[in-house]
Amino acid sequence: MTIIEGVLRGNVRDIARLITIVENELPEATAAMQSIFSHTGTAYTIGFTGPPGAGKSTLVDKITLQLCRQGKKIGIVAIDPSSPFSGGALLGDRIRMRDIITEQEVFIRSVSTRGSMGGLSRAAGDIAKILDAAGKDVVIIETVGVGQDEVDIFKTADTSVLVLMPGAGDDIQSIKAGIMEIADIFVVNKADREGADGLITSIRQMLDLNTAPGPWRPPIIKTSATQNEGIEELLKAVQEHREFLTISGSLAARRKERLRTEIIRLVERRVSRLVQSQIKQNGRFEKLVEKVAAREEDPYSCVERIVKPLEQK
Amino acid sequence: MTIIEGVLRGNVRDIARLITIVENELPEATAAMQSIFSHTGTAYTIGFTGPPGAGKSTLVDKITLQLCRQGKKIGIVAIDPSSPFSGGALLGDRIRMRDIITEQEVFIRSVSTRGSMGGLSRAAGDIAKILDAAGKDVVIIETVGVGQDEVDIFKTADTSVLVLMPGAGDDIQSIKAGIMEIADIFVVNKADREGADGLITSIRQMLDLNTAPGPWRPPIIKTSATQNEGIEELLKAVQEHREFLTISGSLAARRKERLRTEIIRLVERRVSRLVQSQIKQNGRFEKLVEKVAAREEDPYSCVERIVKPLEQK
Repeated sequence: MTIIEGVLRGNVRDIARLITIVENELPEATAAMQSIFSHTGTAYTIGFTGPPGAGKSTLVDKITLQLCRQGKKIGIVAIDPSSPFSGGALLGDRIRMRDIITEQEVFIRSVSTRGSMGGLSRAAGDIAKILDAAGKDVVIIETVGVGQDEVDIFKTADTSVLVLMPGAGDDIQSIKAGIMEIADIFVVNKADREGADGLITSIRQMLDLNTAPGPWRPPIIKTSATQNEGIEELLKAVQEHREFLTISGSLAARRKERLRTEIIRLVERRVSRLVQSQIKQNGRFEKLVEKVAAREEDPYSCVERIVKPLEQK
Repeated sequence: MTIIEGVLRGNVRDIARLITIVENELPEATAAMQSIFSHTGTAYTIGFTGPPGAGKSTLVDKITLQLCRQGKKIGIVAIDPSSPFSGGALLGDRIRMRDIITEQEVFIRSVSTRGSMGGLSRAAGDIAKILDAAGKDVVIIETVGVGQDEVDIFKTADTSVLVLMPGAGDDIQSIKAGIMEIADIFVVNKADREGADGLITSIRQMLDLNTAPGPWRPPIIKTSATQNEGIEELLKAVQEHREFLTISGSLAARRKERLRTEIIRLVERRVSRLVQSQIKQNGRFEKLVEKVAAREEDPYSCVERIVKPLEQK
């Protein structure tokens, strides 16, 4: 299978082709992912997320440039929320970076949220694996937003960086507690703006509220990505976190836990498809729905009736 | 069961108690939901969502006041993103409204996202059913954000209102395409601000891009909730949409479709729990994970091995 060989050699066109196959769930996707799996596990993955407008893309670009100067090969998975409103601001930034760096050094792939609803974290994880197998030293997963999707994607990274900015006001409200709790590093970007110190205090208070803190206290790094300030400090924090994970044995444990979750998710997905296809084949299901709609039966009894035969097996 | 009787009579304390039972998934929750189900189906549900800061809460408050004046009984389910940062701005607004209206007329319940990750749309749907059974004429489901959770919750409403505001810039980027497509009514709130007409043009263009438009063209309503402007127009649009749904037969069809989805979700949830509990009991699963972590096996083959026995049944 030449496309797999190409991916393993780091060929840009083959990487792009395999990602397209996986993203569109083409029939050959599973076999391909099976073939590359044994070549994964060497790349270090860093996740970046935060509310829109916090400056994540610029920050990721600066970090990427810095890592490139150190001779590292980088893969970037950018989750692009592809709203019909947006004219692709993300892409604009990216094109600018492509002027500086060739695709041999940095491979960037945007994943549109359109069409991959619900399966976004799976798609992101698979693309990260492809870039890993292709020999990238660091894979950066960048998401916009702070919802459940982002929590799931965030969990697939070795080091998770939450990027905030001062004065976001209402935006802070929409950050799910879940995402604050799994961040390994906090970044206060646009740190030259008013309110930066207040935001740092808020984060610190939140961290102090943790009644069962782990051995790693997430540092808070001030950056100003457009001014290229704080980039070194952020990379140093990532490196320190990586060393902490490695020395403590958490890196292997985290990765194993991730694989466990991934397998369970894949099983659930398969089982859920199985259930759905059996339900659709079964004319009795439509009759049950009719009865529920007419309030002659309730949904819970209906579910019991469907699940009972499975439980006995 | 006196609590159920109390709910059906519209008793505020019993409603609150039953919601707590359901939200915390206490053992008696399913039996209670079974008992009230036959009393549901009369309330009209309106969903409000949009990016943080668009002014949804104020808008919902004004609409609620207006509906109360018409003698309607209202229930509000407010999905509160309970960030450790937020001091509860939502609650502040709400307390103000409570000065005007008694709980007998308007029952408000906030659902925290904390702890109910993933199960948020289920919790919101169950609370809406309780308020429906308690005799509310209109149930308003208010969410903050534009992620997958919100898409799911949005789908549980009869009429879905997407609230946007001019000048949100980056926020617009983060609105998932999915949520734009299921909105029945667009609201441009804070319409006195600069950029309102531009935003309306963008929405209109987006609607024009739809190559397979349905018989209902979502109207775009300008409001200024704090000035109490546009509230009548918005209520008129909701009423028109309700009449459209009723006359076309879509209301019954939509509600049936929702019940079908709900049953399938409940089945998936039950099956997924079944699979997880069996996996955890099974010592072989941990050995498989070890093998995958050591790259001796790939996750996909591992999944096949787990699912195969189920498929044969």
